[in-house]
Amino acid sequence: MRTDTIVALSTAPGISAIAVIRLSGKEAITITNSLFKGKDLSQQPSHTIHYGSLQENGEILDEVLISVFKEPTSFTKENIVEISCHGSEFIIQKIIKALIRNGARLAEAGEFTKRAFINGQFDLTQAEAIADLIHSDSEASHHAALNQMRGGFSKKIAALREQLIHFASLIELELDFGEEDVEFANRDDLQKLLQELLATITKLTDSFQMGNVIKNGVPTVIAGKPNAGKSTLLNALLNEEKAIVSDIPGTTRDFIEDEIHIEGIRFRFIDTAGLRNTTDTVEAIGVQRTKEKLKQASIIIYLFDVSQTTQIDLEEELTEINDLSIPYLLVGNKADQKHSTFTLPVHYISATTGEGIEELKQLLTRSIHTKAYKASDTIVTNLRHYQNLKLAQDSLSQALSSLSQGITGDLLAMDIRQALFYLGQITGEITTDDLLSNIFSKFCIGK
Amino acid sequence: MRTDTIVALSTAPGISAIAVIRLSGKEAITITNSLFKGKDLSQQPSHTIHYGSLQENGEILDEVLISVFKEPTSFTKENIVEISCHGSEFIIQKIIKALIRNGARLAEAGEFTKRAFINGQFDLTQAEAIADLIHSDSEASHHAALNQMRGGFSKKIAALREQLIHFASLIELELDFGEEDVEFANRDDLQKLLQELLATITKLTDSFQMGNVIKNGVPTVIAGKPNAGKSTLLNALLNEEKAIVSDIPGTTRDFIEDEIHIEGIRFRFIDTAGLRNTTDTVEAIGVQRTKEKLKQASIIIYLFDVSQTTQIDLEEELTEINDLSIPYLLVGNKADQKHSTFTLPVHYISATTGEGIEELKQLLTRSIHTKAYKASDTIVTNLRHYQNLKLAQDSLSQALSSLSQGITGDLLAMDIRQALFYLGQITGEITTDDLLSNIFSKFCIGK
Repeated sequence: MRTDTIVALSTAPGISAIAVIRLSGKEAITITNSLFKGKDLSQQPSHTIHYGSLQENGEILDEVLISVFKEPTSFTKENIVEISCHGSEFIIQKIIKALIRNGARLAEAGEFTKRAFINGQFDLTQAEAIADLIHSDSEASHHAALNQMRGGFSKKIAALREQLIHFASLIELELDFGEEDVEFANRDDLQKLLQELLATITKLTDSFQMGNVIKNGVPTVIAGKPNAGKSTLLNALLNEEKAIVSDIPGTTRDFIEDEIHIEGIRFRFIDTAGLRNTTDTVEAIGVQRTKEKLKQASIIIYLFDVSQTTQIDLEEELTEINDLSIPYLLVGNKADQKHSTFTLPVHYISATTGEGIEELKQLLTRSIHTKAYKASDTIVTNLRHYQNLKLAQDSLSQALSSLSQGITGDLLAMDIRQALFYLGQITGEITTDDLLSNIFSKFCIGK
Repeated sequence: MRTDTIVALSTAPGISAIAVIRLSGKEAITITNSLFKGKDLSQQPSHTIHYGSLQENGEILDEVLISVFKEPTSFTKENIVEISCHGSEFIIQKIIKALIRNGARLAEAGEFTKRAFINGQFDLTQAEAIADLIHSDSEASHHAALNQMRGGFSKKIAALREQLIHFASLIELELDFGEEDVEFANRDDLQKLLQELLATITKLTDSFQMGNVIKNGVPTVIAGKPNAGKSTLLNALLNEEKAIVSDIPGTTRDFIEDEIHIEGIRFRFIDTAGLRNTTDTVEAIGVQRTKEKLKQASIIIYLFDVSQTTQIDLEEELTEINDLSIPYLLVGNKADQKHSTFTLPVHYISATTGEGIEELKQLLTRSIHTKAYKASDTIVTNLRHYQNLKLAQDSLSQALSSLSQGITGDLLAMDIRQALFYLGQITGEITTDDLLSNIFSKFCIGK
């Protein structure tokens, strides 16, 4: 059990009215008290706020408000102090350094939440949901994270485990009486139960495709030759001036990421440098990066200038795109100008006038084939959960096939225990240090 | 007296562990209470913290901690609620919108501090010091702002005003007895007092040059022809890779501002595009902006490549710089290569090897001629204060000259009243709506 006291900035960095520095641990109150001039913080009740100044060696660091939370009624179940100071990077650094000199240690990423988990405040899926909640940026991802944080997913997994434990206990009871060839559980009933469990787990694993779209959005690349109008199209889609637009081919040298929500789905647009072969060193790097970005896309908008392109040109340009095996929409820009006709399925737009842009948005949503989910459905949004569910699913399938083949109870019990292990890893009833540090290292510092 | 309730995010925007949304006004507690599920916030004592969730129409917005401050023992002397929620832009927006739907209004920039000032929490110089404190980014600026926030400067001005009021009352008493030619105040004593007051104010106005350097740093431009090594020099000074360095002339197209502290003084380095005439449209904009930036510099480092430049070249290049009447340091780069000799005072460096960089830093500090100030000295860092002090100084000089010329008491009294007016504007005893909105509009939202 760690008892040292950790400290970190818990609000976003940057100039602001106030910033909050958080300490957690046995000595959180004592350490703050050693710098605080006002009153004796150790004598104050939990959940109270105190005004005063922080001073070190006679030098005033800042005038602050101190919030005191006493164990175990705090987020981490340890003593917590929150220092609300002026939102200056300089002051924040001064205060944190002074606290470290007085016995605190800089917190690692996610260490506050990790302590809350270790001290039994919530299970692992709820801890993970806090990180998802902070990163939520759409109605759907907010809803999914909040539901998970409040234990929706945990309950689902707990119910599955309970049924499996019951199942396992029946099998193991049989094993104890192995020689006597007793059947405590009706084989047909067992088969039915396993089928039900598998169906529930399969529904959860199936939801992950939607969960991934909810959580991460749809990476969308706009590709095409220089001067096809990619930056202008991006601006038309975003309806604002985010990219530098000039009439010089090869202007866009950096990736400017932006996104729009179409019918609740988030499309992350990735603007790229042109694809032409270039002798310009800086731009050549850009083209290389475009090719890498293309491979990460879930969908590609292939944009070309209809006024400058023939059917033969287009077919040639598409060779490279076809090789990628990623779905693409063929979009012909400058449709307001004189142009040839194409036998390929081209959606015509004019990025400058806005013609065809709304229809393009509709094409994008239709390109994402996701099953309809109800708001009350539990959707798996976390890759780790998905992977563990998949493993549990494999074990249960194995058990089911053993059952139908009349394989002995001890092999059956092994598969069930394996499935229980994977489900236990999801909620954190079974954990390793590696697993925990892997999860919490992805958190914000100060969380 | 405004009684509506204002709301704003008080911490920096961005993804973070927590964010704090602040409300101030008569209804701050009532409005929050209408969304809060946990306990009745209106029944809770001041300076206490409460855990629960915010809900609107059955939808959970977030799980939060609520801090309650009751009038008049709060920052604004009004009811204040601070909502500590998860640090997601999406959640922050949801909560603020819900609070607005329930009766709050979005706060203007600086409106919390403005209310604190109007309600008598502190004077105007102290309110201004809060903004300075938030923006402080060096030991010197932090010290000056904190001293001003804690009333150091206010006391100085109050003492000046008190002496002036005493002086004015003597003069005005004489005026009441005008016909009788009474002298309540010895003219020599009055003259001595005025001289002392003037000396004090002059010391304050003189400190502003230093105050400006403390607060704003020294804008420093690195100018020179393309490929002279400006980006490499900036990197050598900053000791890190901030600028994109390539061997292609004209790579730097954006201004990358960075700064170093040399002996407590902050130099803000402004890296610029090259000065060559160019046909590249994007770059031409850069060159134009370089010329504008040059005019804003307090000091220019004129960098040239000694291996490619002759004495005649250099003299020609400097024509434009000489026209600006801004002090410059002539710095010869690539001194490790074969080069001509120069009769001008050139400081030789090699930006690549680091040779001469430390000496260049010393030259920079020596170029800033500031008088030595003690830590306990009051230094004027605010342009508004400086301007008012200058006006008060003029009025007092006028009074002093009137006094020595034996001009009648009523004119003398007018000058004194004028000086009192200017000093009163500094501390905010005399204010106008324009003055206040001008000051507070420069604050952060949420402060």
